[in-house]
Amino acid sequence: MSKIVPVVLCGGSGTRLWPRSRKSKPKPFLPLIGERTMFEATLARCSDPAQFDAPVIVTGTLHLDHVEEQSRNFPGATVIVEPEAKNTAAAIALAAERLPPDAVMLVCPSDHHIADEPAFRAAAAAAAKLAAEGFLVAIGIQPTAPETGYGYIKRGAPLEGGYRVERFVEKPDLVTARGFLADGGYSWNGGIFAFAAGRLLAELARHRPALAAAVKSSVVLGRADGRRFHPDAAAFASIEAESVDYAVMEETDHAATVPASMGWSDIGSWAALRDATDRDRDGNSVRGRAELVGCCGVFVDTDGPRVSVIGLSDVAIVVDGDEVLVTTMEGAQKVGKLTGAAKQ
Amino acid sequence: MSKIVPVVLCGGSGTRLWPRSRKSKPKPFLPLIGERTMFEATLARCSDPAQFDAPVIVTGTLHLDHVEEQSRNFPGATVIVEPEAKNTAAAIALAAERLPPDAVMLVCPSDHHIADEPAFRAAAAAAAKLAAEGFLVAIGIQPTAPETGYGYIKRGAPLEGGYRVERFVEKPDLVTARGFLADGGYSWNGGIFAFAAGRLLAELARHRPALAAAVKSSVVLGRADGRRFHPDAAAFASIEAESVDYAVMEETDHAATVPASMGWSDIGSWAALRDATDRDRDGNSVRGRAELVGCCGVFVDTDGPRVSVIGLSDVAIVVDGDEVLVTTMEGAQKVGKLTGAAKQ
Repeated sequence: MSKIVPVVLCGGSGTRLWPRSRKSKPKPFLPLIGERTMFEATLARCSDPAQFDAPVIVTGTLHLDHVEEQSRNFPGATVIVEPEAKNTAAAIALAAERLPPDAVMLVCPSDHHIADEPAFRAAAAAAAKLAAEGFLVAIGIQPTAPETGYGYIKRGAPLEGGYRVERFVEKPDLVTARGFLADGGYSWNGGIFAFAAGRLLAELARHRPALAAAVKSSVVLGRADGRRFHPDAAAFASIEAESVDYAVMEETDHAATVPASMGWSDIGSWAALRDATDRDRDGNSVRGRAELVGCCGVFVDTDGPRVSVIGLSDVAIVVDGDEVLVTTMEGAQKVGKLTGAAKQ
Repeated sequence: MSKIVPVVLCGGSGTRLWPRSRKSKPKPFLPLIGERTMFEATLARCSDPAQFDAPVIVTGTLHLDHVEEQSRNFPGATVIVEPEAKNTAAAIALAAERLPPDAVMLVCPSDHHIADEPAFRAAAAAAAKLAAEGFLVAIGIQPTAPETGYGYIKRGAPLEGGYRVERFVEKPDLVTARGFLADGGYSWNGGIFAFAAGRLLAELARHRPALAAAVKSSVVLGRADGRRFHPDAAAFASIEAESVDYAVMEETDHAATVPASMGWSDIGSWAALRDATDRDRDGNSVRGRAELVGCCGVFVDTDGPRVSVIGLSDVAIVVDGDEVLVTTMEGAQKVGKLTGAAKQ
């Protein structure tokens, strides 16, 4: 079997990790866990030449500098520069149009954390095999809590190395989510997909012909510039933004899923970041100069000033330049609505 | 009756309001409440020429710059520069030695907050009247909680404008303190005293003759330098440091007290400072740039960076240069033990 082509999506910005994540340098480009940025870790995770080809990165003009700076140690990496953000169906189709039809793509968000890389690579291999057989494969994340912010995948009939998808469920309510966990037959949809490039484009042409045609035009009329490829802006502008989940996965009769338990987190809040980091025996996690007295479950991340904390539980404290954030872990969901996060 | 001479003591440093209060600029010299520093507010409170003479300030060399800078708008203010800190009996005796024997001194700590100035001035007038009659008068603070960190004064037989002191009780345990509050006959000893200068020295000579003699020598051998007076260091060095409470108030048979309810606080912690400041309807108090969401009883003081807070109750957040403090109000008592506060 030929190698997998990693397709790394560097799209949205996100304000939930403000003030560390800013419009000018959002989450994928920050070293939130360990020394590497989330984007670098994503590339590194798909860099074993025995399993992976050089990555294709899809991003916008806004973060092109970060992308090129942080991908320069990955030989052969190419970048597709979207003229504007049009959600994942268009981004993935752009990459597919630039690949041979039988190439197997592994679509990876650039801002997720995966603790167990061998498990990831095993899942990628199984997904790629199913993709090569003509399936459109979503890697299914083993759920660990009744999250209401994720999409869920119900496993159907078994396949070799995975399952057919019985159905997708977007953001269930809490009672439903609890039922999914109790059922055991559901996974989270983490946005990691394996497709044969030609098959993905064929499904898109069938279910979203206008979108597929517009992407094809933008590539035909686009121009290469060294390792960058610029799709034609006018053709791309007509595209209706839609996720690959809606445009393809929920439409195709060849959806499959490969369940994986690999320490996945989308690091969707300061609470999630705390949970993904190394913690002391009181559950505290510290980056930068800090002293904690009588604290548990406290997360501190400071870019300079010393942070001294007394008597707190389950609180995140982030110091970034001229901004200081102090929030309960529960309140961390509201960070994006703060004046500072909105006006950054 | 002649005017009262304010004697303002600028002694100790204190670490409980770290990181705002630092060794180089401690609590008295900070504008913790309103625009004036605690020291300036103390001087201002005793500046009505109808009631008060020019103040005598007793301080050490360490904070002389702050003292002179912040007292320059108070005409006639003089400064006694202690060669070293020897507690309040010596500091007050120094001032007494430099005054006519019949001058009535009002001894004031420089780092206490008094919200109700008319009540303070009425108490000062009553205390001064008793002092002129030969009493050694402690102003008694109306207690509002069973504090175990303060001294208490038990009122005895009534006098005109006050009471004889039945006894002093240092730092009672909680049960005892609760009993004092329930009894109603006890006040806090806030360290505000009225004495006739000669009478104070006579009592000191009787009960602590060595201390009184050493202070007298240090003044006789001292030198004036403009508005500063420098007691002789060698003579002063021999003094045994003792509080005026122990050296005089608990010894004399002429102790009196004037009860006062005047919105007093020693601002002994961030919790006390929060309680002494103007608060919004959720009990939050903010100085500097801050945004609070779903908070109550939160105190924020920042010297620059914006502080965004979500979902917290009864927490103090202080940003001062390269230090950030986040503490529960309960934990605020432990601030002085932080590495930063100890090593500042």
